[in-house]
Amino acid sequence: MSITVVGTVAFDAIKTPFGQTDKIVGGAATYIAYSAAYFYQPINIVSIIGDDFDMDELQELQRRGVNIDGIEIKKGGKSFFWSGSYHMDMNGRDTLATELNVLLDFNPVLPSNYQNSDYLLLGNIDPVLQLNVLDQMAQKPKLVVLDTMNFWMDVALDNLKKVISRVDVLTINDGEARQLSGEYSLVKAAQKILKMGPKYLIIKKGEHGALLFHENQVFYAPALPLEEVFDPTGAGDTFAGGFLGFLAKSGDISFTNMKRAVIYGSAMASFTCEKFGTERLKELTHEDIQQRVSEFVNLVQFDIEIQ
Amino acid sequence: MSITVVGTVAFDAIKTPFGQTDKIVGGAATYIAYSAAYFYQPINIVSIIGDDFDMDELQELQRRGVNIDGIEIKKGGKSFFWSGSYHMDMNGRDTLATELNVLLDFNPVLPSNYQNSDYLLLGNIDPVLQLNVLDQMAQKPKLVVLDTMNFWMDVALDNLKKVISRVDVLTINDGEARQLSGEYSLVKAAQKILKMGPKYLIIKKGEHGALLFHENQVFYAPALPLEEVFDPTGAGDTFAGGFLGFLAKSGDISFTNMKRAVIYGSAMASFTCEKFGTERLKELTHEDIQQRVSEFVNLVQFDIEIQ
Repeated sequence: MSITVVGTVAFDAIKTPFGQTDKIVGGAATYIAYSAAYFYQPINIVSIIGDDFDMDELQELQRRGVNIDGIEIKKGGKSFFWSGSYHMDMNGRDTLATELNVLLDFNPVLPSNYQNSDYLLLGNIDPVLQLNVLDQMAQKPKLVVLDTMNFWMDVALDNLKKVISRVDVLTINDGEARQLSGEYSLVKAAQKILKMGPKYLIIKKGEHGALLFHENQVFYAPALPLEEVFDPTGAGDTFAGGFLGFLAKSGDISFTNMKRAVIYGSAMASFTCEKFGTERLKELTHEDIQQRVSEFVNLVQFDIEIQ
Repeated sequence: MSITVVGTVAFDAIKTPFGQTDKIVGGAATYIAYSAAYFYQPINIVSIIGDDFDMDELQELQRRGVNIDGIEIKKGGKSFFWSGSYHMDMNGRDTLATELNVLLDFNPVLPSNYQNSDYLLLGNIDPVLQLNVLDQMAQKPKLVVLDTMNFWMDVALDNLKKVISRVDVLTINDGEARQLSGEYSLVKAAQKILKMGPKYLIIKKGEHGALLFHENQVFYAPALPLEEVFDPTGAGDTFAGGFLGFLAKSGDISFTNMKRAVIYGSAMASFTCEKFGTERLKELTHEDIQQRVSEFVNLVQFDIEIQ
């Protein structure tokens, strides 16, 4: 019983209207693991880093029930590095630097103790590598979640569609759903995308929340209106980690429980936005999480008797 | 017992990616009245039109319990006319023509049977006229709702702030809340705006729903994801009409009931987007409305037990 996550473990340098950081630890798999580990262990990471990486961070992940056997440490290599600057509205951002470094040599190999995972999260990397990981599973996992982005729609659409046809849940943002489907209406976009294979589609809308589509059903999870969005980096990955961690903990992958999982994922993501990088995400208590989830309940709760 | 609405009764010509109209009936008070009249009668309109207006439309309003005693018909005058063209994403639009016409002479005079209304809705017009109407009320209404827009923040901020200080509920969109408060965060914006006087603030976010703020509480009503947003003209006014109509019907202006009213307002607004102008709004049955409200309930419904 485990969750396996493939994705980047990396360095980021982030600039927002509120300040900026030097190189800090980031990467999709890092956010996913920190978030999911509040709900479930072990989280098996598959990734690649250089020997410039912060080894204390790996130990911190291990202390939280994260298995790092699948993280290849490339001697003399430099870890993937991304740097970006957020606009005043925090929704847009400019990429200042993308140094792929060791990611250019990434050829994920699943340790044997990963191959029977019940839950698999394919983080945002080249669809070829995502397919490669899928093929290494000893059996079909109970649930496969795929995250991707517009870049792969631009440069690797055929392979991306192959991955999409083999997963249970796809998470993308609203712009990406429109690009992938060619439909402006998110309802029409969802109908088309669900026909590509996934049973569930989550469309992330940032400060406007997230939509969960399944067959003819739709669920709208709001985002918590925050006093300050300090740094949204990793919010989508934190969402995915909380979502899958909650599902794995409960072992229930029904639509009803997936709605709860979307709320938990949204709650986790709201924490990540409060400080730079993974800082806030690492200091949470279970009481913090329950308190935040109850704020979501209050945020949308109303009672109407339909006559 | 009545609702009094001051606002425009006008002609619109609308262009969307789906088609375009000739001059059709529009105006804030028209949408508000059609929407509110599904819940409550009479709706007293205060407005001004030219004798070019469609008199059948006035009779249709009357058949629905709308009192038109306060609509001044200016002999030889031309009704207010607005023409706009929506962008592909339906969120942005360009104004093609604004002909104020009789609106330049608008000096609202409340018939005596309007002056004791329990509910007053000040639609989006010059704040001087909104103040003028407030001053004509024989006593403070049970609830005063104000709608306005960025234009008045640009050209008449002092008078606008005077009106704001005297109302119970303010409805504006997210950009306007930011402009009025000077705060980007909607939570901070709401805190500042509530200090200006209103007990309740509704921030409309179009396809992303609406937020209701009151003291330290916040409620997030989603917008229904629609297959097609055909024409959003009048959606905000339809929302306000449904919101206030529902409140007046129940006679309950608590926060709990205002949350329900926001859902009813959102449901009514979703209908308006489905056809050009007031067309869809005029053909609803009470079953349609209940059905749509139950779609909203399903859209956001989840159950989480906080441990």
